[in-house]
Amino acid sequence: VTDAAATLRPNPPLLPAELDTPCLVVDLDVVEANARRLAGELDARGVRLRPHTKTHKSIRLAQLQLEAGASGITVGNLGEAEVMAAGGIDDLFVAYPVWAAGPKAARLRALNDTVRRFAVGVDSIPGAERLAAAVAGSSRPLRVLVEVDPGNGRTGVAPGRAADIALAARSLGLGIAGVFAHGGHAYAGRDAAGAAADEVATLGAAAAALRRAGLEAPIVSAGSTPTAVLAARGEVNEIRAGTYLLGDRQLLALGAVPPDGLALWVAATVVSTAVPGQVVVDAGAKSLTKDRPEYLDGHGFLPAYPDAILDRLSDYHGVVRIPPEAAAPGIGEVVAILPNHACPVVDLFDSFVAVRAGKIVGVWPVDARGRSG
Amino acid sequence: VTDAAATLRPNPPLLPAELDTPCLVVDLDVVEANARRLAGELDARGVRLRPHTKTHKSIRLAQLQLEAGASGITVGNLGEAEVMAAGGIDDLFVAYPVWAAGPKAARLRALNDTVRRFAVGVDSIPGAERLAAAVAGSSRPLRVLVEVDPGNGRTGVAPGRAADIALAARSLGLGIAGVFAHGGHAYAGRDAAGAAADEVATLGAAAAALRRAGLEAPIVSAGSTPTAVLAARGEVNEIRAGTYLLGDRQLLALGAVPPDGLALWVAATVVSTAVPGQVVVDAGAKSLTKDRPEYLDGHGFLPAYPDAILDRLSDYHGVVRIPPEAAAPGIGEVVAILPNHACPVVDLFDSFVAVRAGKIVGVWPVDARGRSG
Repeated sequence: VTDAAATLRPNPPLLPAELDTPCLVVDLDVVEANARRLAGELDARGVRLRPHTKTHKSIRLAQLQLEAGASGITVGNLGEAEVMAAGGIDDLFVAYPVWAAGPKAARLRALNDTVRRFAVGVDSIPGAERLAAAVAGSSRPLRVLVEVDPGNGRTGVAPGRAADIALAARSLGLGIAGVFAHGGHAYAGRDAAGAAADEVATLGAAAAALRRAGLEAPIVSAGSTPTAVLAARGEVNEIRAGTYLLGDRQLLALGAVPPDGLALWVAATVVSTAVPGQVVVDAGAKSLTKDRPEYLDGHGFLPAYPDAILDRLSDYHGVVRIPPEAAAPGIGEVVAILPNHACPVVDLFDSFVAVRAGKIVGVWPVDARGRSG
Repeated sequence: VTDAAATLRPNPPLLPAELDTPCLVVDLDVVEANARRLAGELDARGVRLRPHTKTHKSIRLAQLQLEAGASGITVGNLGEAEVMAAGGIDDLFVAYPVWAAGPKAARLRALNDTVRRFAVGVDSIPGAERLAAAVAGSSRPLRVLVEVDPGNGRTGVAPGRAADIALAARSLGLGIAGVFAHGGHAYAGRDAAGAAADEVATLGAAAAALRRAGLEAPIVSAGSTPTAVLAARGEVNEIRAGTYLLGDRQLLALGAVPPDGLALWVAATVVSTAVPGQVVVDAGAKSLTKDRPEYLDGHGFLPAYPDAILDRLSDYHGVVRIPPEAAAPGIGEVVAILPNHACPVVDLFDSFVAVRAGKIVGVWPVDARGRSG
């Protein structure tokens, strides 16, 4: 993986005047094009898109995705599900092995009772037992998808084990809605085609294992942005991608979004030029995070100053190293920074500035900000 | 620097039952002891303590610090100042080179008009010009402290240059309240005694430069937790420390807090044991951040399982590697995690669970969460 951000040099976005930095700027024209592009590519393959809203945590952006052709929404935890349900979204999948103990049991039950179409992930029999106990006596069964691991090595069982869990879940009164996998190893520099092939093969094997056990797997769901189109084949009939909507420096470097697919920017002001060889902007670790894959240099990219390196972050300071002879922004200048990873960055802000062609068209809340469980 | 967390093995805190994980747990008994300890040590040296509230962003914890002997509060930006002022705290220093353009000019003016004792940092003449323009016509002059760089290499000028900026600021109608420095290089593994000596020497030289220019420097302010006591000498008459109140794994490793000074924990639940050799907890990068100094292994420390390594974080998953033969938490178990760096972790949560001796005594808001500018 090479740092495509440095070589492709996307044009800096048009930033509105009078921004109160640091702030998030989201270009809605780019967002809409991204939403339509992936929905169209998957529709052409006969595969449904269920976007992951952990990227943007915004009810309005989730609605925009549904209007652009998505069929349902993915969330990462019960908190995001509650926010999206309150926003009127009625088809939600929690792509997470929810452990329904303590306060989460009642929260899960309430979601299952009120959301028209609701499902959660499971990757263990004890987890299934907790889910069943949480919804005991409910008017409708809780639907579950069994998670399998395509080689990402995070959560999910081997395909053969998926049938054991599904059988146990069915005997506990849960509804078996299918199987899912996350090819997250595509982000670690593993080639996306290989990770997608892993997803397709693992999910196919899991669906076959369920059939051999006398069960159906109506939903066969893969998902990550790098593998989104590549995994839309075989038995896979649903894709859960998230970051495709906003783009970020990591996806650009992986070739998973084009330069004109970058919708999210952090606007920052140069506040100090006191130390030679660098400038300091007012976006630090509490605006950009320290998320940095090994293949990226620095904590973000300044397209207007492509040789500058965002070397070091403290809470409210971003130290931008300026190599000799390179152009540098002056004190007071507002610069656009392409963040390394969109998802945790958005989660730091209560709202974002929505723009079209450099003009502010609204300030939209990050509705599910801070909902991590 | 060695990873003291692994060798000192602090006892896991008593966690209350029925936590809705992931969540922040703050032990108020430890907080109070930490607040009193540093205030007492500085009082014995005749030096004032002005704690930095960027660590906790809590009005109640700031009030607790004032009750324990602090004289005024430090904040990192205008947003934190607004929150603390709304909470009734009337002596605030913004330890940041505020660039008072656009919406920030009016915000700065309002703070200067309403906060009884208010000051901001400055490290450039253009910055001073903006500050003066923002408060033009105000009923009282804006007080500024000139920032000098003690070798941290972030913001702040050389001591000789401080006098030029102070003279320019005075001619612009600003009030010269003193000089300040941040010995942040103590966090990078530089020995704290050396960083403190740098702060004392640089601030002394800056105060002398101001005197030679016919100006006074009533406040001579140093600050970081590792250098807090060490820099309380020479002309230094104020210390701005923040993280001392809560502690974290980084400070423990640096020897800057003792094991019984750790007040902040992230509580997480084991949600998956599907992949051999590891367990997965529900605290990921959106609960722990990816802040990790080079001298720490992993993204947090589990005192109950000291051989476990929190290897890899995605948004809502923390992958905990369990070496062969090592003890591991079981599925559904709630574990306490000592975060690497308190400040950005607290900023991810809207509230924290306040405990004493393992019993919940309240849920307190992180009032200034997300206020980064």
